[in-house]
Formats: sequence, structure tokens, C-alpha cells
Amino acid sequence: MSTTPNTQPEPLSPISRRRLLGTAGAVGAAGLVAGGAAGAYASETARSEPDPLSSLGSTAEPFHGDHQAGITTPLQAHGHLVALDLAPGADRKAAAALLRRWSKTAEELTAGRAPADDTGIALDAGPASLTVTFGFGRTFFGKVGLKDRLPEALAPLPDFSADALDPRRSNGDLWLQIGANDGLVAFHALRALQREARGAARVRWQMNGFNRTPGATSRPMTARNLMGQIDGTNNPKPTDDDFDQRVFVPAKGQPAWMAGGSYAVVRRIRMLLDSWDHLSPERQEKVIGRRKSDGAPLSGGTETTPVRLDKVNADGSLAIAGDAHVRVAAPASNQGAAMLRRPFSYHDGFREDGAPDAGLLFIAWQADPMKGFVPVQRKLDRGDGLSRFLRHEASALFAVPGGCVPGEYVGQALLEG
Amino acid sequence: MSTTPNTQPEPLSPISRRRLLGTAGAVGAAGLVAGGAAGAYASETARSEPDPLSSLGSTAEPFHGDHQAGITTPLQAHGHLVALDLAPGADRKAAAALLRRWSKTAEELTAGRAPADDTGIALDAGPASLTVTFGFGRTFFGKVGLKDRLPEALAPLPDFSADALDPRRSNGDLWLQIGANDGLVAFHALRALQREARGAARVRWQMNGFNRTPGATSRPMTARNLMGQIDGTNNPKPTDDDFDQRVFVPAKGQPAWMAGGSYAVVRRIRMLLDSWDHLSPERQEKVIGRRKSDGAPLSGGTETTPVRLDKVNADGSLAIAGDAHVRVAAPASNQGAAMLRRPFSYHDGFREDGAPDAGLLFIAWQADPMKGFVPVQRKLDRGDGLSRFLRHEASALFAVPGGCVPGEYVGQALLEG
Repeated sequence: MSTTPNTQPEPLSPISRRRLLGTAGAVGAAGLVAGGAAGAYASETARSEPDPLSSLGSTAEPFHGDHQAGITTPLQAHGHLVALDLAPGADRKAAAALLRRWSKTAEELTAGRAPADDTGIALDAGPASLTVTFGFGRTFFGKVGLKDRLPEALAPLPDFSADALDPRRSNGDLWLQIGANDGLVAFHALRALQREARGAARVRWQMNGFNRTPGATSRPMTARNLMGQIDGTNNPKPTDDDFDQRVFVPAKGQPAWMAGGSYAVVRRIRMLLDSWDHLSPERQEKVIGRRKSDGAPLSGGTETTPVRLDKVNADGSLAIAGDAHVRVAAPASNQGAAMLRRPFSYHDGFREDGAPDAGLLFIAWQADPMKGFVPVQRKLDRGDGLSRFLRHEASALFAVPGGCVPGEYVGQALLEG
Repeated sequence: MSTTPNTQPEPLSPISRRRLLGTAGAVGAAGLVAGGAAGAYASETARSEPDPLSSLGSTAEPFHGDHQAGITTPLQAHGHLVALDLAPGADRKAAAALLRRWSKTAEELTAGRAPADDTGIALDAGPASLTVTFGFGRTFFGKVGLKDRLPEALAPLPDFSADALDPRRSNGDLWLQIGANDGLVAFHALRALQREARGAARVRWQMNGFNRTPGATSRPMTARNLMGQIDGTNNPKPTDDDFDQRVFVPAKGQPAWMAGGSYAVVRRIRMLLDSWDHLSPERQEKVIGRRKSDGAPLSGGTETTPVRLDKVNADGSLAIAGDAHVRVAAPASNQGAAMLRRPFSYHDGFREDGAPDAGLLFIAWQADPMKGFVPVQRKLDRGDGLSRFLRHEASALFAVPGGCVPGEYVGQALLEG
């Protein structure tokens, strides 16, 4: 690699990252704006010195910690979801070696460093908030002789009446969630991790998604989905007293190897956008129970005002309709069940029938799917007015172990414990 | 729409845009950084006032002008290419009405305004450098009784030996190129323009692409493609004396309705990335003729140093190999032929054979394809060492008329002249 020196900026320490986003933000972001305006013509604006203050690119998410990254990380502009199946004959040792390689590669890339033998696809980029999250599917455990460690919570999701699931795009032994604020950084990570899997596992399915580009909207980055609806307002918040309890398996939870981990429900939910767009905005808002413009509940207030399910209009009708999505999904309607939704939108062109192949890569995080996704989806499946505009086309559930400390790898407690 | 007020910031005048990118940049971008760090949890950081200085979102590209936008516009992070065929029976009048509707919608959206009956998909976004570019394919002219106005330059592209073209993803009566720095803004524009076409034309093919996110890299934004190679260094530059002559049909050119217009060659070029990544970086650089790290030619210098095709190494070998891509594509090797390449990368997951369905949505702009793409591609087809890592899978050529002034629409001189 003598002719391809690593021109990437040094990874930022947590302190310098905070600085960049805090008091030094104005300076850093001025560099960013200049970069954005530089245009397609390199020769006009070529500079020999890299600009270390290009904050979107240089922002690094920590790889190590109690929890894996990519769960409470702010939404990223680009995402790849990949499920892999173990190669025939791959055993526990091979799986452990794969997870070790993967963790090493993810650690390097998320810090903005090039792993050994890097392909150089994203040279000159910083980490751009890259995260890599690893999970295990139910089928993994039997194949590597670890059936005794299969978590109860990883029981197959129940069938829902509206499901039309494609098994080829559902489930999988292993799962990768890759997110970054730059498309090339995300693609590079995907390629690097796929390369590490060669011989040990092969891709079962892969889905690409996106969210708003940081800075594209002056709103805080609550997701707006392809229906135009603000999505995620009622998410549990890290500042909530019960956030950790809802989202993460406790330190002394079961199984022990899942301490600090979470369960990810992944659903590919196609939106029937042509039908949806035929509704008037007023009708759309009744289906959801929130205003489209700002996400405020139809029971009044602003986006963050708690939804008042009992509010009655002057004419005696419910402000939030009986089958409104926010009513049926509300914790109050589900014995307090809640999950952290952290989705990507997807758009894969159009289908044979001319409809857009587009919708939501729904990803929900919870300490126990039976107290999160399952009861809420059971309720939605029966009573949600939004359901007729949605098609659940793929589904998976993964056990996502806790984070690791330097020198260890994700899943080590499962594979070597 | 009474319950869905337009919360978008006012479109920026060219002056305020310049201000934003100049002296006021530091302040604006500080807001941007804060937005980027705000995260997925709206309620923690909700602000009632929109921040008008979120520069990535609020940057507007002018819709009106001598040339259409999207040709010399800096590369955008998200792109959609769409070809449509006229509905059976659609005549010149119907086509004119469609182009009028499209221009109106594009004018509104690119200024950050919501058209009448907007679906609200991207509410609260600014224009995020949205551009919409309209083109006509060869088949358009016969269908609307305008065969006498078919430009000579719109002759079918010749066959190339390495072509493996899918006719279902090639050509088309009409072409839209949509680009923006936010995925939802681009998707929204696509949906809005498709809606305007209903009854008049239907989608023939659609492709989605991406480039770096502004600010992701501290380098000026020369494209880096999925091979990791810097791409576009040798592009004609707007500061070149002959830039307009190469890229745009002159004011008194033929046909008259194409004054200020350009011809777009669109090729879907899949990259055989698994084979490519098996090469050592040194071998990759020999195939291209440039260093991977910084794009400098192997004949020495920096990215912008002119390539010295005659440079000989100490051992007597050519510094730039005989079949190196930069040699075969160089204007000096092609009687001065040159074109403005302005591509998007694409990545549509993986193919049945396990290879990535990924590569380049190659878009080349020139005043005359016979003095741009055609002679260069003839040469590449025979002698380019890079060809064996590429598959040209789709192809199209479109006449892209000049820009319009307020009150007119793109293509008016063709359809009403």
C-alpha cells in the first residue's frame, strides 16, 4: 500500500468530538459549508491539506461500550441491513473467528481508520458517524451447537393476519446493521464486512435504506417517513427513567451473555403510496392521529404534547379516531408495551405493477419482544386504520448482544463464555 | 390544506444564498451541526422556531437560466433517473401540457415551495439543492408528429462490442434527472413529477444513485466511485475557454430549439467489484493510470497535474500503461473529444450470482455526442484495460433543451416553436 497512504483524518476522541459539536462548532461547520459549495470541479478548488474540521465526515461514534452502537445513535442518512447464513459446516469456532474479524474491522472503520488490506473505496472520508451492529438469529444457535444458550426471547414472532412475508428476505443466522451519514462510507463498510465473511457465511438478504441528511431540515431529526408523516415522536427517550429497562437486557438478565444487549425486530413494510396519496391530507391525519405538518396530535398541542386519547371534539366525535394509528399503538392501549423504533426508509424503484417499491425498514429495539413489538403489532394487526396502506413483506428477529470492551469482540460471551 | 401549513423556510435569493455560503457561513453551519447532533429524539431538542440557516437544506439551485440545472450543478448526494414513454395516443398538445406542468412543479420544488395539492412528503425540508433536468429521447419525436425537428445529434448510439444492454432499461421518450442533497427531498420530487405525468406518460425505467454527502470528506468533491477511484478530474471545467462549446449547443446552433441545450448520454455501468477488489492497489492504479489515494497521475504531480502520456519509467516502461484508462480516454488520444461526466453511483443490493449489483450511473454531457461520448467510447471499447471490470447494462441518449425564463417551460421552443 506504499502508493496509497491513508489520507484520512485522525479519529476524533470523544472530547474533540464534543468540542466540534459545541463551542468549536461554528468554525468546524464553516469548513463544512465551504466543502459543500466546492462543487464538482476539483481542480478549481483543490487544496493539498485535508480540512480536519469537516464535521459531518469526521464525527465518530464510539465502537466500544455497554451497548452496541446503532441503537441510540442519531438516525443516519444511509443504512444497509444484511442477513447472512453460516456456510455449511461452519462451527462455533468459525463463528467466533468471524465475529472477531468483524469486530476488529468495525472498530477500525468506525474510528475512521483503514483496516489492513483495505480496498480504499472510501479513502479520504472520515467515519461519517458510521456504526455497525451485530445480531444473531434463532437459526444460528443450533448450527454452532449452542442451542442451550438460545434466549427464550428469540422465540419465533407470531403470525399476523396481514403478513405477506417473503421467507427469502426474512430471518437469517447473522445480522449486520450498518449506518453512516455518507453513502460511500456505508457501502465501503458493507463491502469490508462481507469480505471478512467469505468462506464463513454468505449473504441471505440485503436491504438499503436512508434517512434525512443532517442539516437538510431545520427540524430536529425526528424521522419523516415516505408517507410524509413524522415518525418516532412517542419513542422511549434515553432521559426516561425506564428507558434502559425497556430497551436493554439488564446486567443480571437472562441469558447472561445478553447483558446490555437488545432484541431487534426488523420488518420490511411496503407503503401503498399511490393509495395513500389519494387521500386528502385531512383524511391522512385522521388515519394517523397526528398533523402532517408538525406531528402534533389531533388532540391538541405540539409534537411532543402527550396524546389525549379521551379528547372529544365539539360534535362529540373522538379527536383521535378509534382506529387511528397513534391510539392503537399507544402504550396506554397496550399495557404499557413500548419499543424504540429506529427505522430507515427504502426505495427500490418500482414494481411490475407500476407501484413504488418503497416504504419503511422498520427496526424496533426492546429488552423483550413480548413486551414490545409483539403485543403492539397484535393490536395494530387487528385495529389500525393505517394497516390497509401497509404490507409487511419481510420479518426477522435478532438477539443483539451488549457492546464489547477493547480487546474483546461482540458476541464473545456467547461464543466463548 | 388548512391543517398543514407550509412550514418550509422561504426560498433563498441568490444573494442570500451567497451570503449563507460566505461570511454568514460560520453561523449558519453552527446551526447545522447542532441539528446533526440533535439525534433521533425530537422531544429532547424540540424548537418551535425553524432555523433558517440550516444551509444544506436551504440551499436552492436556480430553475431558470440559459441552461437547465443539473448539468454544471455540484454533484448531489441523491439522484433519480427516470425514463418515461408517452401514453398511447398522446399528441404534441398533451406533451406540451405535460412539460408545462412539469416545469411548474420543478420550479416550485427547486425553490423550496410546495406545489398545489402537494403530498407533503418532504414538509419542513428546504430545497436541499434540488434540481430537475428534462430530456427528449429519439422516439419522442415521431410519436408527437415532430420528426422534422429530430436533431441529427440524436442518432442512435453505435453498438459497442462490450455492450450487454437491457432494452427495458434503455432509451425512452422522456427523461428526468432529479438530484438533491436530501433523500426525502429527491423522493418527493420524483413522486410529484410522476404524479404530473399520470395519463400522459408512464415510467419505462427508473434508477437511483448517490454521491458523497456534502461535508463527508474534506477533499473537494471530485467523485470517488465504488472502485474507490477518484473520477472526473479531467472533466472540462466551466473556467475553460471552450467549456460552453464542448458542453452546450450554441445560441445559433441547430436545431434552433436546442439553443443552450446539451446531449446527455446515460449508461448504467455495473462494476465487477469482486474481481476488482482482488487486484492489489498497485495493479488497480496501473489499470486506471492514477493513484487511488489522491488521483494523481502515475506520470507524477498531484490530481490536477496534466497527465504526461509520454513519461517513461527508469526501466523504460511507460509510466501510464498503454491500456490505462486515463490514456485511452484522454482527449489527446481522441482528437480532442471530451465530455462533462456528472455521474451517480448506484447500489441495488446483490444479484442472483451473489455479485453486488452496483456501479456507476454514468451521465455525460456534450454539445454533440459525435465529438464527445461516441469517439471516446469507441476507443475505450477496443483498448481500455478497465473494460474487463465493467459491464454496460443500459444505455440512452437524450436531447436536453436549454433552460427557460419565468413564464415559459422547458421544451416550449420544440413543442410550440
